[in-house]
Amino acid sequence: MALILGIDPGSRKTGFGIINVNGSHHDYVTSGVIRLPIEQELPERIKVLVSSIQEIIALHCPQQVSIEQVFMASNAGSALKLGQARGAAIAACVSNDLEVAEYSARQIKQAVVGTGAAKKEQVQHMVKILLKLPAMPQEDAADALAAAICHAHTSASLVNLAGVSRIRRGRLR
Amino acid sequence: MALILGIDPGSRKTGFGIINVNGSHHDYVTSGVIRLPIEQELPERIKVLVSSIQEIIALHCPQQVSIEQVFMASNAGSALKLGQARGAAIAACVSNDLEVAEYSARQIKQAVVGTGAAKKEQVQHMVKILLKLPAMPQEDAADALAAAICHAHTSASLVNLAGVSRIRRGRLR
Repeated sequence: MALILGIDPGSRKTGFGIINVNGSHHDYVTSGVIRLPIEQELPERIKVLVSSIQEIIALHCPQQVSIEQVFMASNAGSALKLGQARGAAIAACVSNDLEVAEYSARQIKQAVVGTGAAKKEQVQHMVKILLKLPAMPQEDAADALAAAICHAHTSASLVNLAGVSRIRRGRLR
Repeated sequence: MALILGIDPGSRKTGFGIINVNGSHHDYVTSGVIRLPIEQELPERIKVLVSSIQEIIALHCPQQVSIEQVFMASNAGSALKLGQARGAAIAACVSNDLEVAEYSARQIKQAVVGTGAAKKEQVQHMVKILLKLPAMPQEDAADALAAAICHAHTSASLVNLAGVSRIRRGRLR
């Protein structure tokens, strides 16, 4: 058994989702969206993001983190904002000694929908099916859960979860 | 007396500098450059950045942080990388309950050199003069010290340092 935290960072909203992986079986644990106070200055927004992620980690004790790799942004301004949120989210995880794996949007879509060119709604739909959810998860939460599922599907990461990360965390789950 | 930590974030090198402010008097405390392991993946690089900043904070106990505000980047790719480093640096500070103030490059140059259009070398030169350093500080360290000096010059922040932040930190320095 291993808990994987998926994160879908954004400068306004950051999705998160945790799944429990037991062999080829995945169970939904929790998911949601952290809304940043956009009327406030950046340090305050980052504080909300970091403390929210730290709360989620303290509450659920995930062993690994999966986050979408970003290569493109429409312009330099939005890339900077997205980068700031992404860097802060990763900082919150690594300061809790969590390993963070990065996957491209294409890899995540491929793992969840079976095609790297899938649309947002297809990802939401397949996340609902794969995790047997009663309703469609919110878009950012679905992307975060999809990142977690993608990490679970990566065999190398599962070998890792079975060995290294357990020792790193100093306890068995 | 108040200790101000200035940070000049970058995706390869992050400069830092601490000054001690006593009324209109500034003393140099420390400065340097955190070099990120560029051959490693982003989460590892962020881990080095965050743990280095946390060590600096633990060692010197600054009360406020000053960081350059970035608006422009040459392209979306470099903006994303810079944003990630900047977001992680701010995350490291706010998770230590430090207040972070942002200043534009223009404000910082204006405070240190007297003109918002100053060149890098002029900033280095004036930081050396203002802090009575025996030699020219490294470029990124000079920019970080300049951000700290800019924050010290802002009267509002000094009022803040004299009152609010002391109480927030729960002790007198």
